[in-house]
Amino acid sequence: MQTWEPKTPHLAVDAVLRLWEGKSFKGIVLVERLYPPYGFALPGGFVERGETLEKAVLKEVKEETGLSARIRRLLGVYSDPRRDPRFHVVSVVFLCDAEGLPTAGDDAKRVHLLKLEDIPFDSLVFDHAKILEDFLKA
Amino acid sequence: MQTWEPKTPHLAVDAVLRLWEGKSFKGIVLVERLYPPYGFALPGGFVERGETLEKAVLKEVKEETGLSARIRRLLGVYSDPRRDPRFHVVSVVFLCDAEGLPTAGDDAKRVHLLKLEDIPFDSLVFDHAKILEDFLKA
Repeated sequence: MQTWEPKTPHLAVDAVLRLWEGKSFKGIVLVERLYPPYGFALPGGFVERGETLEKAVLKEVKEETGLSARIRRLLGVYSDPRRDPRFHVVSVVFLCDAEGLPTAGDDAKRVHLLKLEDIPFDSLVFDHAKILEDFLKA
Repeated sequence: MQTWEPKTPHLAVDAVLRLWEGKSFKGIVLVERLYPPYGFALPGGFVERGETLEKAVLKEVKEETGLSARIRRLLGVYSDPRRDPRFHVVSVVFLCDAEGLPTAGDDAKRVHLLKLEDIPFDSLVFDHAKILEDFLKA
């Protein structure tokens, strides 16, 4: 087996996270970043080697919002090399559902529960405005 | 901006590549690997930094089969850490369509046009048997 390793884009996961109270839809959960780039973002983060994307997205949601979510489906994959100002990051986006009260995680990000009509599109970082637009228009 | 870079899984793209002659479905195109792991595989390969997944999968299809394909849709994302025996590779799989005659590419892989009834499931490398099974049963 070869020992050469390819240099591929960095890999992240993000969640379009819907919050429910029984059968009532309460809104979607966004986090406010305390590190650059500043702004609102979908819950998510980099994938570690050795973990599946499904585990990674549920772990990130838990860490950032305190919520135990369920994955509903794969929404899309975003790979424009300019979507992250730092380096090339490909994001795999899942639709997730959760119940309960979101709380800011250990990394002290603030969390926001937002009605679909109140999404702050102009304050979303990366291409998260496009991701949410694709979701809303699908 | 930070200069730290995360160490995430390697990223690949693969195509479930359908071949058409006008309105007639002719089969799917698989490549026979000349390098380990040996066996049949979906056309595909590693993604380079700076290229989108869509460009990457069409480039790999072209290189390995000579075909100019069109992407129909995203089929799925496969991220089991054990799916590739070499290291952790996450594959994003697209359904692609092409017309014409497949020919082995520069890297001298052989290409095979196979009816759906003749897919050599036992000879497929990585988790490509599962990917094709998911496709056929979707």
